[in-house]
Amino acid sequence: MTHIPSKQTPKEYALNPNPQRIVDDLLPHRVPAHESASAFAPANIALCKYWGKRNEPLKLPLTGSLSVSLGDLGTRMTLRVSDQDRLHINQIEQPPESKAFSRLFSFIDLFRKPGTCLAIESINTIPMSAGLASSASAFAATVHTLNALYDWKLNDSQRSILSRIGSGSASRSVYHGFVEWFPGEQDNGMDSYAESLNVRWPEIRVGILTLSNAEKPIGSSEGMKRTLETSVLYRSWPDQVKQDLPVIREAIYQKDFPLLGKTAEQNAMSMHATMIAAWPPILYWRPESLETLHKVHRLREKGVDVFATMDAGPNVKILFTEESTAVVKEAFPDVRIVAPFSDSESYCNRSGIPF
Amino acid sequence: MTHIPSKQTPKEYALNPNPQRIVDDLLPHRVPAHESASAFAPANIALCKYWGKRNEPLKLPLTGSLSVSLGDLGTRMTLRVSDQDRLHINQIEQPPESKAFSRLFSFIDLFRKPGTCLAIESINTIPMSAGLASSASAFAATVHTLNALYDWKLNDSQRSILSRIGSGSASRSVYHGFVEWFPGEQDNGMDSYAESLNVRWPEIRVGILTLSNAEKPIGSSEGMKRTLETSVLYRSWPDQVKQDLPVIREAIYQKDFPLLGKTAEQNAMSMHATMIAAWPPILYWRPESLETLHKVHRLREKGVDVFATMDAGPNVKILFTEESTAVVKEAFPDVRIVAPFSDSESYCNRSGIPF
Repeated sequence: MTHIPSKQTPKEYALNPNPQRIVDDLLPHRVPAHESASAFAPANIALCKYWGKRNEPLKLPLTGSLSVSLGDLGTRMTLRVSDQDRLHINQIEQPPESKAFSRLFSFIDLFRKPGTCLAIESINTIPMSAGLASSASAFAATVHTLNALYDWKLNDSQRSILSRIGSGSASRSVYHGFVEWFPGEQDNGMDSYAESLNVRWPEIRVGILTLSNAEKPIGSSEGMKRTLETSVLYRSWPDQVKQDLPVIREAIYQKDFPLLGKTAEQNAMSMHATMIAAWPPILYWRPESLETLHKVHRLREKGVDVFATMDAGPNVKILFTEESTAVVKEAFPDVRIVAPFSDSESYCNRSGIPF
Repeated sequence: MTHIPSKQTPKEYALNPNPQRIVDDLLPHRVPAHESASAFAPANIALCKYWGKRNEPLKLPLTGSLSVSLGDLGTRMTLRVSDQDRLHINQIEQPPESKAFSRLFSFIDLFRKPGTCLAIESINTIPMSAGLASSASAFAATVHTLNALYDWKLNDSQRSILSRIGSGSASRSVYHGFVEWFPGEQDNGMDSYAESLNVRWPEIRVGILTLSNAEKPIGSSEGMKRTLETSVLYRSWPDQVKQDLPVIREAIYQKDFPLLGKTAEQNAMSMHATMIAAWPPILYWRPESLETLHKVHRLREKGVDVFATMDAGPNVKILFTEESTAVVKEAFPDVRIVAPFSDSESYCNRSGIPF
């Protein structure tokens, strides 16, 4: 882990741990160095899940987590110094009163001087129908792009901390490949950032099964909060992570796919179990989600190494390796296959424009 | 609680806690007093679930549980001293090699002298399609009937202990109405029996929704075992029960239905959550189960006090009160409604013969 010096003591942060002070602490200046800048950040899927904050405003997690980034699937962002704030997402202008506009510019307000206006072009290479969260890649891309525009020369851990303030899991979207986010212990969160595992595993595949585009019954932040407050079983969740995270990390280093898959699936199921045990119960699962889980179990009974993971929504992602591609395609004809370590099999083109 | 004297010290039981010694301890003699005897025991639905044993052979639970018996729905049994062992269930003869025959006569072997043969007529007034376990009522009915046949004059707690040895939840089927099963602390299980709450609540309704007759992927005993061994979240299950059981008991005494329903539903969901978090995951839920849970949630959002509970299987039972009968029937046209405290609304006739 990199040591990140802080200008303020942990005690000061503890008294008023607000995001602005973290940003103030990390930025060397607030004068744009260029007229415009672009950068890309990938979406990510957690293999060991993040569920529950120890600090809401700083988005500090209660536990560590570990993810795999989705290669070309993510957010490509261009920032341009402008005479007014504007936001285009996938070439569609978002009005200032939209949720996306206010969330993104509230975040950017932490970084810029009053008076600096920015025009943002954000392209999601994640198909809208994929049911994948785009906020992680969007906030990480914002930090990468701001860093380029202002020429701050922030290191990866600093970018991860700043992305985290936008959206917890964005801390992991700063990197490609396998990524671990350390929960940290400090009140100011300066030790809560992600790092790359520096392992290439080209045979790994993530299959995205879009089962439902129905609006989620509850957002993930609110879902975490309700789980923490009302789910008795959540009390054992930190133990679950303590057990799973080192196993997943080691399975990646050893390239032991059955161990990785099994542990990731149990971890995801356990996260959903903490929500099912909340009140009112958080049931992201739809009948189709369950049908898919049963199908994955049946495939496994037939000897296919395929495992499921789910995030705060009804869609199921499956984990497998290259050799199972044919049988997975047969079982799930609509699957979109992502090869996190191989550009050739990603389903968006190199310029980041989705098709 | 009744004090039950034991002829053997807890230490002796701890060294060899086997069911035969419990039975030996409780029975005054082994000579049938009549040629035949009959008795009935109801099925029961746990409002605070039993999930996990502290002792396998004695079927001692890790936690307490609380149920409501289902009135006329259960097992009516007749035992007749005979020249050979025979078993009829719902008028169909079961061969000696069948699972039902061997399970029931292995149990009866604990109670009789070698040489005493019995012909058993067992009538389940639980519709086969209802997806309700009949083992609880069957073992409780067996103990009631043996007690009558031998004229042992066993008290309720003793019958509950003996029924428990056949099937844990049978300890509760000894009684009608609301029933609490104490987990006990002794190694010999002499303090682990059920008692009636002695509350009549005629307005209570249980709706049985039969969603699937598919064979269960895993039996409940094996399911409990796997959950204990592999589910990290199960570690918090005893805390869940510690929280829920007194609330449910008090809600019954206060006739606070929303509190009873909410707590019973969260308890059932949490039990399933412990299984979902096991490995391999125990997914009794079918897509139809989930559809029904969502439907129950939607009804509740409309202000109807209806709650769900589920046991180790895919079927959903709903809890409501008399006043919601019409809206429940409209939402679930196939529902079978049981009124645990009112014979008139049960759906089997007084002689216990199902139709």
